[in-house]
Amino acid sequence: MNMMEFIDGGVTTPEGFKAVGVHSGVKYRSLDLGLLKSEVPASAFCGFTSNNVKAAPVQVMMAENSPTLTAVVVNSGNANALTGRRGIEDAKTMKSWVATELGIDPVQVGVMSTGLIGRFLDMHKIKYGISRACRELKVGRTADDLLAQAIMTTDTIKKECAARVRLSDGTMVYIGAICKGSGMIAPHMKVLHGTTLSMITTDARLSPAFREKWQAILDDSLNMVSVDGDQSTNDTSILLANGMARGGLADDDPAFFEALKAVMTKIARTVAIDGEGASKLIEVKVNGAESDEDARKVVKFIINSPLVKSAIFGSDPNYGRIMMALGNSGAKFDIEEVQLVIKGGEMEVPILQSGAPVFEEERSVETVRMAMDNKEVTIEMDLGVGEYSAIGWGCDLTYDYVRINAEYAT
Amino acid sequence: MNMMEFIDGGVTTPEGFKAVGVHSGVKYRSLDLGLLKSEVPASAFCGFTSNNVKAAPVQVMMAENSPTLTAVVVNSGNANALTGRRGIEDAKTMKSWVATELGIDPVQVGVMSTGLIGRFLDMHKIKYGISRACRELKVGRTADDLLAQAIMTTDTIKKECAARVRLSDGTMVYIGAICKGSGMIAPHMKVLHGTTLSMITTDARLSPAFREKWQAILDDSLNMVSVDGDQSTNDTSILLANGMARGGLADDDPAFFEALKAVMTKIARTVAIDGEGASKLIEVKVNGAESDEDARKVVKFIINSPLVKSAIFGSDPNYGRIMMALGNSGAKFDIEEVQLVIKGGEMEVPILQSGAPVFEEERSVETVRMAMDNKEVTIEMDLGVGEYSAIGWGCDLTYDYVRINAEYAT
Repeated sequence: MNMMEFIDGGVTTPEGFKAVGVHSGVKYRSLDLGLLKSEVPASAFCGFTSNNVKAAPVQVMMAENSPTLTAVVVNSGNANALTGRRGIEDAKTMKSWVATELGIDPVQVGVMSTGLIGRFLDMHKIKYGISRACRELKVGRTADDLLAQAIMTTDTIKKECAARVRLSDGTMVYIGAICKGSGMIAPHMKVLHGTTLSMITTDARLSPAFREKWQAILDDSLNMVSVDGDQSTNDTSILLANGMARGGLADDDPAFFEALKAVMTKIARTVAIDGEGASKLIEVKVNGAESDEDARKVVKFIINSPLVKSAIFGSDPNYGRIMMALGNSGAKFDIEEVQLVIKGGEMEVPILQSGAPVFEEERSVETVRMAMDNKEVTIEMDLGVGEYSAIGWGCDLTYDYVRINAEYAT
Repeated sequence: MNMMEFIDGGVTTPEGFKAVGVHSGVKYRSLDLGLLKSEVPASAFCGFTSNNVKAAPVQVMMAENSPTLTAVVVNSGNANALTGRRGIEDAKTMKSWVATELGIDPVQVGVMSTGLIGRFLDMHKIKYGISRACRELKVGRTADDLLAQAIMTTDTIKKECAARVRLSDGTMVYIGAICKGSGMIAPHMKVLHGTTLSMITTDARLSPAFREKWQAILDDSLNMVSVDGDQSTNDTSILLANGMARGGLADDDPAFFEALKAVMTKIARTVAIDGEGASKLIEVKVNGAESDEDARKVVKFIINSPLVKSAIFGSDPNYGRIMMALGNSGAKFDIEEVQLVIKGGEMEVPILQSGAPVFEEERSVETVRMAMDNKEVTIEMDLGVGEYSAIGWGCDLTYDYVRINAEYAT
């Protein structure tokens, strides 16, 4: 059987990967510097933010564009963004310190940062952290956990996932993934060219041609998450494939593709669930769109609307705001044919008929409130003009979102 | 002298206008139905939401496209949006009831609604309200006030303004304006073709050709306000010019243009100040853009960013988020040349030099906090690539915004 299977594991679950997280002092107390290492150079597929103000590590990685990476160093607490030429030098220095400690070429070291924008890194602390991290690399659930913790900022839950799948040639391959991201989350990462940071490891073997498929997977997973519509300067996603499972190329293996997509979808949903201050996950499914672009646009407008998000926080049956968001998306729809269903728990409430609400009385609107009063609310919409679909994830807008972001730099 | 002068007044200040606001019962207690009437048919310049889900009254007004209007009826508490064919009929019925009571042609009656989306109007209540309003039309500050109150939803302050200006031919003309709008505010109104509703009266004489200038004024005033980035289904702005001041055409009179623009700018700022839950006004000025479009885009991305808005609420010196918003706007800029200044009260704090913060230490960042700790915060940015500018207004994101919108329909 080649069905994929989720397993308990993390980034060191695939063969040949080690990880660690340490406290360097950039943050006051928690782990703030992580390192991931592959035993052999791994094919690297990187996706970077399309924000035009790119953090220094993103600029450095994009300029080098290395097809393989052996290690990735990451710090949290400081995004090394908006730091000019000094920031670029600091990002390069981070790479070279890791390279020296591990005895590899600096071009083989990926670098990521997350945290406050517009502050210079304290490189003394970083140096100490890197030196310690290089000595403490390990395999296993503790190592996975340390790295996952080291990349967190306002995250409240660890975003980690692992799976295994048998390729058509019989090889069993493993996939491990971690991700951080809670605020400034509306990634629109382009392969080669949040703040979600994610690292995905696999012992499958992939050729550079897998790049396009990796973009497709990102587009349907992390790139469809939005916590606040604000795309970060630092979003980076790195997939490392070291081939140590020894099978043939997994590029075109449908089972591998589905497994990787399932892992990334799970990670994406977790990012939305843990959006800053979130109390509910919002899943938006759009069907019947005239184009793929239209379907995605409608999803994004709905999950980014502060009015929709606040209504869901309060279980306020203000479904008109969902239609307001549709109208603003610019996507084509036929108002007479548009279907809108709100789902939550066991409830499934159709809202519209021929462009008007099905409810005649305020009492019956209460069913919408009941559906919204769940930890996971699904908004399903059919635009009635085509065959394209998209799914995306967001979260409600709560008092805690405001609190967290009114005192972030403090 | 032809300098414009703000005066104490409202929509009935210009010659020949009467107004009233009554309680029809659509809302539980407060005034919810207003009427404005001109003694003679007035040239009408209407701007409507560009949201593709348009409320019934907007659809009806756009279809009729009457060059003159004699009266405008407006209700609050229910937006008559997402109400299908029944909503269209209801909007037409509102017009015809007013026409019958006032003895005018229904096409001479404008109609606007604001309030909850996706509920049918209770036409019994509306009929009672219209009948009462038509009998109670008056001139004067009380009448102005009743109409201003009748169009409010979550507004906490009355948005009203009046001015007078002498035309070059010696005629003294008056301008009066009221506006409502607090949430779902990101108007992008197109002349002919929030929820802000606004009514502007003047006794100047204007020809249909004034339409383009009216669009230019809207584009620099109400269309540059954003409370939450969510454009309403109902935004409508109606300028009525009844010519009763008897002067020549004011179309090309620069003093009139400036006076009208000043009135609309003042109204726009008031809408931002009274954004739902707002505790601070945010003014964003962008200079040095390569195009007018770029300048406006950057303004909008900054004032719509929940992260920027929350930071300003908490006076959190997280200026990096402003740059994050710039990067997401897609506008062209030269990071080495970008200037960013945050102003508040007496403080004026430059932030950047060659793409990096001017601050070396966390202590000096405290000046940013001090500037942000004011009721009005100005963000001034120069993109360093051209000569275009734009100004826009928004407000901070507060606990109250979330509260208000989590229980709106309740």
